[in-house]
This record gives sequence, structure tokens and C-alpha cells, in this order.
Amino acid sequence: MAIAEVSIVPLGTGNVSVSEYVADAVHVLQKSGLKYQVTPMGTIIEGNLEDVLQVIKHMHETPFARGIQRVYTTIKLDDRRDRKVDMEEKVQSVQQKLKKHTSS
Amino acid sequence: MAIAEVSIVPLGTGNVSVSEYVADAVHVLQKSGLKYQVTPMGTIIEGNLEDVLQVIKHMHETPFARGIQRVYTTIKLDDRRDRKVDMEEKVQSVQQKLKKHTSS
Amino acid sequence: MAIAEVSIVPLGTGNVSVSEYVADAVHVLQKSGLKYQVTPMGTIIEGNLEDVLQVIKHMHETPFARGIQRVYTTIKLDDRRDRKVDMEEKVQSVQQKLKKHTSS
Amino acid sequence: MAIAEVSIVPLGTGNVSVSEYVADAVHVLQKSGLKYQVTPMGTIIEGNLEDVLQVIKHMHETPFARGIQRVYTTIKLDDRRDRKVDMEEKVQSVQQKLKKHTSS
Repeated sequence: MAIAEVSIVPLGTGNVSVSEYVADAVHVLQKSGLKYQVTPMGTIIEGNLEDVLQVIKHMHETPFARGIQRVYTTIKLDDRRDRKVDMEEKVQSVQQKLKKHTSS
Repeated sequence: MAIAEVSIVPLGTGNVSVSEYVADAVHVLQKSGLKYQVTPMGTIIEGNLEDVLQVIKHMHETPFARGIQRVYTTIKLDDRRDRKVDMEEKVQSVQQKLKKHTSS
Repeated sequence: MAIAEVSIVPLGTGNVSVSEYVADAVHVLQKSGLKYQVTPMGTIIEGNLEDVLQVIKHMHETPFARGIQRVYTTIKLDDRRDRKVDMEEKVQSVQQKLKKHTSS
Repeated sequence: MAIAEVSIVPLGTGNVSVSEYVADAVHVLQKSGLKYQVTPMGTIIEGNLEDVLQVIKHMHETPFARGIQRVYTTIKLDDRRDRKVDMEEKVQSVQQKLKKHTSS
């Protein structure tokens, strides 16, 4: 299972807001059935590598369908194969270690 | 107000888990008093640009204090100056637009 | 034509050097026949979106073939469809504008 | 010595070209005296961490000076402290290992 984060930024829109483009991309993601989480800086997706890359490609296409001529997409891919780790566990693991700091 | 995302990856650790290093960095962030959110792919920080970059520098230093010799840090910086936008609002704005998709 | 940049970072190697893993990935890229450039911070690839994403997936797989259990890959994708822009032209365009600065 | 890569993307410009903004940012970098390289996907900077982060902050400010209201900046930071590695050496190290592949 891979966990990816994707940020899709349309260029040359004439408007600083990008949320409608992000919503388009997330709408495509929803239809994929993959587990995801929208954050203030991107969209996190969990699934097997092939499926995740496939849906990111479709998400990246969405601004072009609205007439945008240039899209700048950033992808981070965290692919761990020693054991299955899901999104929630990654955050929980950090928070558990953080408790030791704050209690010491 | 800027919103940033930082991912700190220690190299050459001999262990695939990085959560203890992330917890160290988040511990430093907590002491800064800045608003933040830990996600499965990074830590999001909100504040004025100067403060955010300052705390990221301190976070980036934490693995070296544990003896790590190489740190790979990725930062995304979303800096909007037409009006104040906070972390939660960015996500809400996407979700509102997403509702129109799913209801149509 | 899309221009992408990929950085492949193996985790848990026990050694801070990653160049042998990067060389593996670039070797796979060479066989694809796509135009590319190795920089100090990543590998830049030019080609149609489908081909570029396909080769990045193969490049991302290479550290696992050496026994690595976790790979952290960062991809930036600059996809412009108003006209064809190649790698060299992007840099030349910046340098031309830079000359005006330094001559003024 | 740290090696960083920075990509500065102005949003809401109404024009897909961003090279004039990149040239502005590189002009600020030139005046810093730090070693750098412009690539098709970003600008790579070598120097001590403090200086590199300082100049990146100044580079990030340049689009606002032209009236841009939102800037999206991506930074990758490769900070190695076991020994001094410069930009050129990172690429050479990959190319040497690549030769073994292609000759075998």
C-alpha cells in the first residue's frame, strides 16, 4: 500500500482562488473509491501504487477540462513494503511518540 | 498569514520508521505556539512567514541532534496576501464546492 | 509535452549516500528513450504525460529491487498545453529576462 | 553545506508564463553571491543553511513586489553533515555509478 499526497495548482487563471479546481480533482478521486483525506495543503490518497498513480493522473487532467492551459502538480509518494501502514496509523505513531516528550 | 507544509526525512537511519524523528520535530513546533496540524504526509503550520520559516529551520535541525548525518526536508509554502485565509477555511472552501458536484 | 522532476529517496538504508539508487533509477530512464537531465536535486524528464508517469513508476520501483523496504519519491509535474515548451527553452526564457535586469 | 531547490509559482496572474517572476527571484539570488544553478524545474542553491533559507525568503517575496497576491513556493532541502558535498559532486557521483551499469 502506498500513501501519496497530491497538490494541483492551475496557472494563469487570473484569480488567486484555486478551490474550485481542487474540488473538481477531489470529485474525480471520490469516484475512484480510494481512501483519501483533504488537508489544507493537498489531498492524501491511500491505495495500491498503480491505482493511486492512475487516479492522480485523472485528477491532474481536471483543470484542463475547464480550459486551463498549464497545471503544476506536486506529488509525494511514501511507499512502504515491509508491512501495511495506513494513513491514520502514521499520524497515531507520531502522536504516541509525542506524548512521551510532553510527559517527560 | 502563510500556510506551510513540512516533511522531514532522516537518511541513513538503518530503520524504515521515521515517526520518532517526526515527533521530535513536532515537539519543537508545539513549543513555538504556532497553529499546526499533523497529517499522514507532513506537518502543516500557519503563521506569519517569518515565524513559520524560523520554526521549520528548528524542526529541520532536530534529527541532527539525534546523530543523523543527512536530512531531506520538503517544504510547500502557500502565501496569500489579498486576505487572511486560515487552514480550516481552505479545506471548507473545497468541501463546499464539492457538495455542488455531488448534489448535481 | 510535460516536464517532470523526480527525486527518489530510499529510507532505512543505513548509509547516507543515495547515489547508487539514483543511478539505478536513471538507468531505467535511459532505456525509455525519453529526454532527461540529472540535476543535483533530482532528475528532469520531458515527454508526453503518459510516458513520463510510466517511467517514473518504473524508476520508483528500482530501490525495492535492491531490497529497500521504503521509498520516498517526490514528483513535480509542469504540464503546459497552450504550446510546446521544452526543457532548454524554459531555462533560456529565464536567462533572457535576467539579462534585462542585469543590464538595467 | 546545504543544497536546496526552490520553485516559485505566482498564482492568479492571468498568464501561463512565469519566467519573468522566476527571473526576478534569480536576480535576487545573484546578488547574494551564493552558488546556484537554474534548471527547467527550479533553482538550486548551495551554501550554509542559514544563508540559503534567508535568500529563499527574499526570492519568495519578489512576486509580491510585482503586485501578485498569492505565491506558491516549493523547497527541497538536502542537508548533509558527515562531509562537504557540492552540487557538481552529487551529479558526478550518479554518473560514475551509471557508467558501471551501461558498461556491464
